[in-house]
Amino acid sequence: MKTKDKIIQGSIELFNLQGERNVTTNHIAAHVGISPGNLYYHYRNKDDIIRSIYKLYEKNLAQMFQPRDSSSVGMDEMLFYIDRVFYSMWQFRFFYANLPDILARDDVLHQRYLEAQKALNQRMVGILKEMRGQGYTTIEDEMIEDLAHTLKLVVTFWISYQHTQTQQEITKATISDGVLKVIGIFKGYLTPSGLEAISKIESDYKESVEAQSIGTHLD
Amino acid sequence: MKTKDKIIQGSIELFNLQGERNVTTNHIAAHVGISPGNLYYHYRNKDDIIRSIYKLYEKNLAQMFQPRDSSSVGMDEMLFYIDRVFYSMWQFRFFYANLPDILARDDVLHQRYLEAQKALNQRMVGILKEMRGQGYTTIEDEMIEDLAHTLKLVVTFWISYQHTQTQQEITKATISDGVLKVIGIFKGYLTPSGLEAISKIESDYKESVEAQSIGTHLD
Repeated sequence: MKTKDKIIQGSIELFNLQGERNVTTNHIAAHVGISPGNLYYHYRNKDDIIRSIYKLYEKNLAQMFQPRDSSSVGMDEMLFYIDRVFYSMWQFRFFYANLPDILARDDVLHQRYLEAQKALNQRMVGILKEMRGQGYTTIEDEMIEDLAHTLKLVVTFWISYQHTQTQQEITKATISDGVLKVIGIFKGYLTPSGLEAISKIESDYKESVEAQSIGTHLD
Repeated sequence: MKTKDKIIQGSIELFNLQGERNVTTNHIAAHVGISPGNLYYHYRNKDDIIRSIYKLYEKNLAQMFQPRDSSSVGMDEMLFYIDRVFYSMWQFRFFYANLPDILARDDVLHQRYLEAQKALNQRMVGILKEMRGQGYTTIEDEMIEDLAHTLKLVVTFWISYQHTQTQQEITKATISDGVLKVIGIFKGYLTPSGLEAISKIESDYKESVEAQSIGTHLD
């Protein structure tokens, strides 16, 4: 691995473990096993590192959110989508633990984030409309926009909320709980056929979490 | 006003205006017009001030959440409740803009917060069950718990979410939008008679925001 990439990987590790606020560039250099001078050769400062991490995260998201298979949209697609959002959330959890602060510090980063959010919103609205097309919900267009925002808010602040609701560490179980919570929010909006489909998906997900077949990629 | 109270009021003002993280005890002393030494005579440090503010906030909440009138529970009570939660949120918005961080710094404060949250949750669940008793919803007990958590999450992180979604300032309009958003979340769970009742409440609220009759206490 190149030093530049090693710094990024080491930073993600330390940020996730100790919280972004508690980690300095000196800590990162020591963790990666290079001199502070060598680190500054590659990155101007901590915010420069965070910006690079954000670009990596965005690239991951874009790859993951390619529709899997145009014939299988609907409820399955929705779970797949939620699961992937929470997966990235786990990988970059330092970011979500401190999001308003990180964005407030860097206007350029905030702009990029806002654009990515717009795309994410459109994709969410699209999936919800596809679900309606399949008779899983009868939700109206106006409420779809609202629901997409609510879901985004819940997902985005799931980790922060957990930090306020308990004094324990965030674990993989916290993340799986979040996926189930988001599935739960849908339930209020579903037709009987939608409820049947989601119950199946919910129990499959619980089983796979127990069997670690979905849980395993949360590393 | 006693100096001790002046310090608290001045701190709330500065924190709300500039963000808690950007305000030092020296700024507070200057704002209140006392010497830093005088401030330290009353409070050990900034966290000591924040703890006192939190106690004030808790007292306000407890007073506001006395059921108004046992004969009028249901949809009206719910709006009253949401409106009061957002009203405290506006008064102490610095706290909500930076909640996980403030709580992480002070275990005693975090404990108090958790206990208050438990009480708030029970009150929420109680109101939702009363709404069911009146035929406004058919939501099951298990989903009531989930809905109460979702509502709490959305309310708690409404301000933080707004900070991530726009680069603009938080205003009273942001807060009224939050009330309407929370009303919107209920809609998925309501019976036709519940939807009728909430539509009335929603349009009354919108009117009163426009007429500033509810908006006026957001000072």
